[in-house]
Amino acid sequence: MRICLMGFGAVGQGVAKVISLKNDYLKEHYGLELKLVAVTDSSGAAISQDGLDPDLLLKIKSETGKVSNYPEAGIENIDGINVLDKVEYDTMVEVTPTNIQNGEPAKSLTIKAINDKKDVVTSNKGHLALFFRELIELSHQNGVEFKYEASVGGAMPILNFAQETLPGNEIKSILGILNGTTNFILSRMTIEGSSYEQTLQEAQQLGIAETDPTQDVEGIDAACKTVILANSILGIDCTLKDVQVTGISRITSEAIDLAKKEGYLIKLMAEVSPDSLDVSPRLVKQDSPYAVDGTLNMATLKTDLADEVTVVGLGAGSVETASAILSDLINIWKSQK
Amino acid sequence: MRICLMGFGAVGQGVAKVISLKNDYLKEHYGLELKLVAVTDSSGAAISQDGLDPDLLLKIKSETGKVSNYPEAGIENIDGINVLDKVEYDTMVEVTPTNIQNGEPAKSLTIKAINDKKDVVTSNKGHLALFFRELIELSHQNGVEFKYEASVGGAMPILNFAQETLPGNEIKSILGILNGTTNFILSRMTIEGSSYEQTLQEAQQLGIAETDPTQDVEGIDAACKTVILANSILGIDCTLKDVQVTGISRITSEAIDLAKKEGYLIKLMAEVSPDSLDVSPRLVKQDSPYAVDGTLNMATLKTDLADEVTVVGLGAGSVETASAILSDLINIWKSQK
Repeated sequence: MRICLMGFGAVGQGVAKVISLKNDYLKEHYGLELKLVAVTDSSGAAISQDGLDPDLLLKIKSETGKVSNYPEAGIENIDGINVLDKVEYDTMVEVTPTNIQNGEPAKSLTIKAINDKKDVVTSNKGHLALFFRELIELSHQNGVEFKYEASVGGAMPILNFAQETLPGNEIKSILGILNGTTNFILSRMTIEGSSYEQTLQEAQQLGIAETDPTQDVEGIDAACKTVILANSILGIDCTLKDVQVTGISRITSEAIDLAKKEGYLIKLMAEVSPDSLDVSPRLVKQDSPYAVDGTLNMATLKTDLADEVTVVGLGAGSVETASAILSDLINIWKSQK
Repeated sequence: MRICLMGFGAVGQGVAKVISLKNDYLKEHYGLELKLVAVTDSSGAAISQDGLDPDLLLKIKSETGKVSNYPEAGIENIDGINVLDKVEYDTMVEVTPTNIQNGEPAKSLTIKAINDKKDVVTSNKGHLALFFRELIELSHQNGVEFKYEASVGGAMPILNFAQETLPGNEIKSILGILNGTTNFILSRMTIEGSSYEQTLQEAQQLGIAETDPTQDVEGIDAACKTVILANSILGIDCTLKDVQVTGISRITSEAIDLAKKEGYLIKLMAEVSPDSLDVSPRLVKQDSPYAVDGTLNMATLKTDLADEVTVVGLGAGSVETASAILSDLINIWKSQK
């Protein structure tokens, strides 16, 4: 499978690591060989129809910051869209930064790849939260696969879980913790009794919160994931503007202490149901499946037969998130054999 | 799909309920019609090549206690093995009581059905814990499906989860709570500060613990499930005698209190790894995925790429466990189309 990897940040580098680590395993178990024929970052691209060496890509990125420095195959200042025209490939893996204003560049890259009859795998949330239906319909019209396991919950395999493990069950609603940064902040506030501001700063120092933490702490990231789950699992036609969102920036250590004394924790919960698309802080019982700490994500599916089933996993991480991308690639491969 | 349902206790009745509830859904979504052609209990059987009415079966069982009272189709004192010769069927659903002495009658029923080239779905643990390899190999030799999602964790879809949602990952080990009765007892002792004996009695009154609670409280039920996970997910060739087992009957309320003060809970954990097959009480951190209360089951898979992923679900329940059997039936149906 020839892959154009659009974006070479943490997740993109994770994809290269996973390909390097697992190529033998994939050949043996699935007869699948993943070949990187193009990789882009903000500096440009590296393109080679014969395949790029993932380890060399990682080395050059780490040493020079630019994939365009790849020997012979590097091209400076080339646009992602143009890269897709310069090389023959089967699947675009799109891991550019999430943009919730207009979904770009992910949106244009995805539309082009799909129109060119290529399969697409993404970890991006922006274009899905804004244009889910349009993009899915376009993929159907073109008869290609469009997969996005990594876009919700990183390494937590919530989409595969909902679609593959419970056949015969109807999923009625979902309640989950879909943002690791806020879960880390609330967990630390609970354990240490520290203030929101203090804990946010700590999270920023650890690289768990970004310099501008708005998307995480105001619940926008969780809302994007809410849209993706609503559309893909519950068939609810919605976009980001349909989600009611309240963040965690007004949660005080006093509120957390009060809850704790009564056996509760405060968590930023996303509710996905036909009646409610909502991201907001809620009380959850200690020792319930909702009471996971640190940067973990979780989602509980309410079903008609199996009652409540829950999946928990790491919401972020380079190789961890790339493993969700790998599962999409393998599923595409298997469906085409 | 014509089904012989062997056993009509809680799980068997759940299967009848699920067929009644979901027949239209299954036809619409999968083109699958489940037809009960035989049902057995300790009184005998009801057999009809035209199909038995699941609602009437449930009514007769509830009113008279015997499926052999089914009008016209009822037969008293017929042996399960003989039932399999009296009717044409596609799949045996075997839900007789677990027997860890010799795996009977599940073992003989399963061997006969497989040798007759029938697919088999079971919720039974005894024959799997004692003869896993033999039974799986026999099913391979005969080219039939042999599925057992319901045997571990009831409605918690651990086998589908491990096999379907994480392609590309290698599962290194499993750590889980595989027995709902002991988890209920330990959770109540933690919340109420009550003694083991007192809490066991409460669980017995609620029908959560059996009159003879040995298999649950001494860890034998969890050990059976450990064997099934070890063989099916990790490929470890083992049987019940290979599992190190310590139960919960010596856990004191003082020990639980001490743990609680340090932020820990005591749980009966099953460890499944190439180095260790072990069921024993362990300390787990509050607010970790291991800290689920009540009759919930959970299992954390340690993987090479996605790190730790966890699934949580109800470990028992009539319709809930039947939903796991239904998922096996659907997967057999899909694989044969």
